[in-house]
Amino acid sequence: MQMMEERILRDGKIKSGNILKVDSFLNQQMDIAFFEEMAEEFWRLFGAHRVNKILTIEASGIGIACIAAQRFKCPVVFAKKNKTKNISDEVYVSQVESYTHGKSYDIMVSKEYLTSNDRVLIIDDFLANGAALSGLVSLVKDAGAFLVGAGIAIEKAFQPGGDMLRSQGVHIESLARIKTMSEDGGIEFC
Amino acid sequence: MQMMEERILRDGKIKSGNILKVDSFLNQQMDIAFFEEMAEEFWRLFGAHRVNKILTIEASGIGIACIAAQRFKCPVVFAKKNKTKNISDEVYVSQVESYTHGKSYDIMVSKEYLTSNDRVLIIDDFLANGAALSGLVSLVKDAGAFLVGAGIAIEKAFQPGGDMLRSQGVHIESLARIKTMSEDGGIEFC
Repeated sequence: MQMMEERILRDGKIKSGNILKVDSFLNQQMDIAFFEEMAEEFWRLFGAHRVNKILTIEASGIGIACIAAQRFKCPVVFAKKNKTKNISDEVYVSQVESYTHGKSYDIMVSKEYLTSNDRVLIIDDFLANGAALSGLVSLVKDAGAFLVGAGIAIEKAFQPGGDMLRSQGVHIESLARIKTMSEDGGIEFC
Repeated sequence: MQMMEERILRDGKIKSGNILKVDSFLNQQMDIAFFEEMAEEFWRLFGAHRVNKILTIEASGIGIACIAAQRFKCPVVFAKKNKTKNISDEVYVSQVESYTHGKSYDIMVSKEYLTSNDRVLIIDDFLANGAALSGLVSLVKDAGAFLVGAGIAIEKAFQPGGDMLRSQGVHIESLARIKTMSEDGGIEFC
């Protein structure tokens, strides 16, 4: 998606440790008009697949997923990272190794909201090592739901997550795929 | 908002400890068509106030805020609960005492995304003891931004947060205000 590449080049900032900061428009401040363009593209890519549920993970996937869900006319379910008093005991659980936070954690979703009747599109902001996406795919499988695929805003294609999950048969579409990036500001797309 | 009261009566579940579970439509599974109705109501209540930024807090406020932001044609900024490698060092910080999680934590927002030029509407899913909302109000004040008010999905009016913050001059509009609720299923609205 050309718009995403242009936006990354204009507003993204590269920090040490292969961190791409896009929090001015994607994952702290959220440009909702831009999210609508992203939703349109996700619809073009997955609209024929009778998606009836979008699954994402807190926190930065939620906004993108909600705007996409308008196009798909379906509800969003988000996996939670911490067990709170509010969540049902009846949950599917998967473990995620976080690169950003430097620790592992459980993600979970109530069994009520992910079932074998669902045709699920996963939406998230980033795909790099694939830890979060793997965890979400596991939740979908545990529920016996059908996984349509995964729509990702930005994929760091130089990290192994995308290749690994595609080789497992997951249909992944990323709106921008970064081939290389370096702190002097250079970004090359696939 | 009659629609919200009806939805709570239909789908809400009351658990011990004054917990109202509305995660089938509001804060784990998210009914986006319903969020659009909520957005329309927030626009009716605050649309004349030239809001140019919506502030919320991860995670369950984000979806409601993003759909509302479409109506206000402005970006959303969400306060983060944990410091990650991705967030700027230049942040406003406020401490929140969480009833749900049973502990206190810091919330923060990058100084870049909340400034003295902003006219801010806070959006969140719940108002009970007012801890999260107080923290968000502090962030707005620290930034020197103008606080238009706060739009809340569900207020537990039998807890002190709403009265406390209104007495401090915060313009709060809640789509449903619960006067009393009990585990046998009874809910009375204000």
